[in-house]
Amino acid sequence: MQDNKEKEQEIFMVRTDLAVEAKESFEEDNVEIKGVIIDESYKEEQDIKITRVVIENENGAKAMGKPMGNYVTLEAPNMVVPDQDYHREISKELAEQIKKLIPLEKEVSVLIVGLGNREVTPDSLGPNVVENLLITRHVVREYGKEALGKNKVNIISGIVPGVMAQTGMETLEIVKGVVDETKPDYVIAIDALAARSTKRLNRTIQITDTGINPGSGVGNHRNGLNLESLNVPVIAIGIPTVVDAATIVNDTMENLIDAMEQTKELKTIGGTLKTFDANEKYQLIREIISPHLNGMFVTPKDIDETVKMLGFTISEGLNMAFS
Amino acid sequence: MQDNKEKEQEIFMVRTDLAVEAKESFEEDNVEIKGVIIDESYKEEQDIKITRVVIENENGAKAMGKPMGNYVTLEAPNMVVPDQDYHREISKELAEQIKKLIPLEKEVSVLIVGLGNREVTPDSLGPNVVENLLITRHVVREYGKEALGKNKVNIISGIVPGVMAQTGMETLEIVKGVVDETKPDYVIAIDALAARSTKRLNRTIQITDTGINPGSGVGNHRNGLNLESLNVPVIAIGIPTVVDAATIVNDTMENLIDAMEQTKELKTIGGTLKTFDANEKYQLIREIISPHLNGMFVTPKDIDETVKMLGFTISEGLNMAFS
Amino acid sequence: MQDNKEKEQEIFMVRTDLAVEAKESFEEDNVEIKGVIIDESYKEEQDIKITRVVIENENGAKAMGKPMGNYVTLEAPNMVVPDQDYHREISKELAEQIKKLIPLEKEVSVLIVGLGNREVTPDSLGPNVVENLLITRHVVREYGKEALGKNKVNIISGIVPGVMAQTGMETLEIVKGVVDETKPDYVIAIDALAARSTKRLNRTIQITDTGINPGSGVGNHRNGLNLESLNVPVIAIGIPTVVDAATIVNDTMENLIDAMEQTKELKTIGGTLKTFDANEKYQLIREIISPHLNGMFVTPKDIDETVKMLGFTISEGLNMAFS
Amino acid sequence: MQDNKEKEQEIFMVRTDLAVEAKESFEEDNVEIKGVIIDESYKEEQDIKITRVVIENENGAKAMGKPMGNYVTLEAPNMVVPDQDYHREISKELAEQIKKLIPLEKEVSVLIVGLGNREVTPDSLGPNVVENLLITRHVVREYGKEALGKNKVNIISGIVPGVMAQTGMETLEIVKGVVDETKPDYVIAIDALAARSTKRLNRTIQITDTGINPGSGVGNHRNGLNLESLNVPVIAIGIPTVVDAATIVNDTMENLIDAMEQTKELKTIGGTLKTFDANEKYQLIREIISPHLNGMFVTPKDIDETVKMLGFTISEGLNMAFS
Repeated sequence: MQDNKEKEQEIFMVRTDLAVEAKESFEEDNVEIKGVIIDESYKEEQDIKITRVVIENENGAKAMGKPMGNYVTLEAPNMVVPDQDYHREISKELAEQIKKLIPLEKEVSVLIVGLGNREVTPDSLGPNVVENLLITRHVVREYGKEALGKNKVNIISGIVPGVMAQTGMETLEIVKGVVDETKPDYVIAIDALAARSTKRLNRTIQITDTGINPGSGVGNHRNGLNLESLNVPVIAIGIPTVVDAATIVNDTMENLIDAMEQTKELKTIGGTLKTFDANEKYQLIREIISPHLNGMFVTPKDIDETVKMLGFTISEGLNMAFS
Repeated sequence: MQDNKEKEQEIFMVRTDLAVEAKESFEEDNVEIKGVIIDESYKEEQDIKITRVVIENENGAKAMGKPMGNYVTLEAPNMVVPDQDYHREISKELAEQIKKLIPLEKEVSVLIVGLGNREVTPDSLGPNVVENLLITRHVVREYGKEALGKNKVNIISGIVPGVMAQTGMETLEIVKGVVDETKPDYVIAIDALAARSTKRLNRTIQITDTGINPGSGVGNHRNGLNLESLNVPVIAIGIPTVVDAATIVNDTMENLIDAMEQTKELKTIGGTLKTFDANEKYQLIREIISPHLNGMFVTPKDIDETVKMLGFTISEGLNMAFS
Repeated sequence: MQDNKEKEQEIFMVRTDLAVEAKESFEEDNVEIKGVIIDESYKEEQDIKITRVVIENENGAKAMGKPMGNYVTLEAPNMVVPDQDYHREISKELAEQIKKLIPLEKEVSVLIVGLGNREVTPDSLGPNVVENLLITRHVVREYGKEALGKNKVNIISGIVPGVMAQTGMETLEIVKGVVDETKPDYVIAIDALAARSTKRLNRTIQITDTGINPGSGVGNHRNGLNLESLNVPVIAIGIPTVVDAATIVNDTMENLIDAMEQTKELKTIGGTLKTFDANEKYQLIREIISPHLNGMFVTPKDIDETVKMLGFTISEGLNMAFS
Repeated sequence: MQDNKEKEQEIFMVRTDLAVEAKESFEEDNVEIKGVIIDESYKEEQDIKITRVVIENENGAKAMGKPMGNYVTLEAPNMVVPDQDYHREISKELAEQIKKLIPLEKEVSVLIVGLGNREVTPDSLGPNVVENLLITRHVVREYGKEALGKNKVNIISGIVPGVMAQTGMETLEIVKGVVDETKPDYVIAIDALAARSTKRLNRTIQITDTGINPGSGVGNHRNGLNLESLNVPVIAIGIPTVVDAATIVNDTMENLIDAMEQTKELKTIGGTLKTFDANEKYQLIREIISPHLNGMFVTPKDIDETVKMLGFTISEGLNMAFS
């Protein structure tokens, strides 16, 4: 979870780390965006919905509030169920998607970065993933590939940089230092994301070749982990485990308007609210949101078991892709 | 945090673990309740506000939604600030309040129960407290009081029972078993509470001699930890570390109505909403709350450091009281 | 790991939690013990050696320093290797052995106790196992067997009682309290054991129907977890993860004598030492062991990964047996 | 704890991370070493013995098996006792010693590195220390010194790099990367050390301006954290929390010889052993040491509470020095 100042500023906008949700907000308005290509498929046997969003140009990037690149989403409603066989299927699908982004004919070296705070349960996804990885770099360097009994061995290293309150450093500073020193071919960053809707929590994996881009992601790559800042391609894998508390209130507002529309006595009121433009809505919500909600998040009570399980599913996917 | 079914049923009621908040909701309506005595004081030097709520009879209990007994609240706005000296003052005040509830002229034996889930950060307050306690029971039993170099030694034991999803057992079953076997004079249960308002999070300590009473607490003592269920007096110490997600929405609704009252164009609407009776409000909120919010909680992003610090403050208070 | 006083007293005896090691010390002396039956088999495909030691009467118990009952040992040299498929085979074999001790035609209720200190890595085996169990008791009690989609559901509960320094209570007090309150048909206790030899560390699983019996186990059942103390059958499952530091020294002594035997110049010395009786040896070792070694243990540097993996293997075995 | 190959090679030499122990081994032999200056003092009130060893030239370095520089040892027999006031005294003394090595008239920026494996209890000292530090760098960078209400603010950052088995990278690679990127004036590395003698475990703090130098430290600075490898001065603070298992055996050997000297019947044997030169001794010990002891360590059973307490004492010392 990113905790930079920008986030607070856009708290009343369509705030989501998921391209698939950014896309939906346009679909609601029946708007088609130039420069954004969407492709959906469904694997019935595994009950996994795969959505590929390609942001082709700056116009699309501006509209979506996300940098140009590929965003693949795996949606699996049963991902919260602790069924080992089912999670193996998800890991396999994740491995397939990773292989589409990283050509593995030749050996590659990959640094896997577990973002987030291991002491805050819903934010511990990244650290959890790195704990379960098959790390090979030190073995190959010390004993050669033969030690692992294979002809082709990908060089996997991992790091859990911690969060700024614990280190005093930005994640980028730590990761850039390590990348400059160890020169991996690729960085894969794992992070817990913020979703817009509670119904997507812990049920969606997003894989993107644009890296991690806090804030709107457009025009501000300063603190992100991406090709521009690290000089190697960065793939980001994330699962939404929290919703910003302010988003919940925003949703309520929307629901209220809809509810009013449909309630006889309230139709006039709902209608009135509906005529508000974005700015007026913003002003109204600003007034009714408690200032204490900034920096708060919403998460399920059983998040401990869910994060542990999802962390394992992602690490297995990575282990499958690279072994 | 309790996770029983009753909670869900009353999700739209005034839902709070804090007597001081239950009281406030009546004050807002300018209602005085028979059978409830309130006494407030303020320690200027330490900036601690102390509120004592006494529920004297069944009428008060019904109105407050809490069992008869004493509820003391220490409110300290700076409790979230990591200032060791200030936290020592809070620990001292807590020790004083504990001594008012447990006469310590004679030696006593006390079992301290750390409720909650150590794997979910805001729910790990109880386990954190037990980790920092001065446990003496085993030393006294094996080597006598002399081993601790004192004439008078209180017998302190501690347990972290875990939550039902981990044990398959109700907390009461575990604690009752241990109490029957080890026969302490008192039980002190530490728990993370749910507040009604985000502004009280991590700033308030509640001490009560009524024990832990999930749900409304009136008429249903089945799963509680209290004198009735354990056959020894139970003191509960809690700090609100979360707000139920549904409460946030409820608050927003209230704020919306207030905001509308004061906004020129919306006055009519606000007025209309205000005329709704409780049932109509309930219906409206029911419609606008996402069903996905059940079982969700709201908590600050830096909850890891806060819970660690507050756990230490409570355990120091207990150590001061009993050593 | 047990930390009672008795242990210290027998620190210079054949000190081991493993029946298979107690047996070996007799074999070295070519002694056959009446009342002890030994049966060995080897599963070639899985490379698992299975030894069954049956102590039939008090004579055998006295000789072995262990209570009457069945002791099954699974020895697998590759158990320290992180190979998922191999560990699945071990889990299966463990499940088979458990089914031999607990008849599962009818539904049973089982309380699984994770002994040891979760804060000390080699002692965290028990807590690790309980974390990964499929706990069913609360689901069945609240929603019925149907909720789990089966006709027959075993009722599994679990507890991590902690160690005396943390709780002030003996493990038996906590477990007895919980057993009396929840009345399981069986208790299964998981514990990290002390081996006599470093070469057996993390490579052996012992399953016994005699429960946990600290000290010699003969004549002193006071603090053990067993049928006598808990009134339900107790099965203990353990893996040696440490060697007592004093044992290392004892072994060195033995090796020294052997080495001297074979070294030309030292033959006389070795011979002299060999003529010492047990008491003289004891006196000599007593002099050369540093008193600082009491309460110390020896364990491998990578014990963190090993304990995590072995804990998972045992919990999978239990899940297979009861699901 | 370092786990490089060199360590294994010198397993039968005087193996210790403590300069004060290296010194002692010479004193036993009544040898005075040119190029090594020793200065001892004792603070009676706090019961802290302070030994300063200065290795002045390459001759001293070779003899001591440690690089040139200053080594200060604080020895406090009561350091294992959980007495808050006493530990505050140790923290103060530690702060004083740090101030002697880092001139603090001007503001300095310091990166504090918590070495070791947080999953292995006796090796978690470094991570424990970093968790309790007052980290200031991010606050000063974002809000300026004023945010901390002071004119002079030292810039403190911290990192827990993890161990090679978890990251696939050498500690040096990670720390060098972060140092190059964030350019601190000083690095302070905290590490759990290996002592030669169990009686020094958890009772000694060593502070040195030579950094961390695995292996003999002379001539091989490749993997160390020091001025040469990081280009900034490196101060190392360590507490011995383990003894190498092989050392225990070595000690036993020595004790055995001494015991034999004093036992009537064994005098001849002891005498014989005493005439062995180092190489013969080495051969003998080699034969009697189990090969399984390599990579094993010895540590006390209550190491969890001790490490937590000592970690807090060091972090408080650092906080005092820099705030």
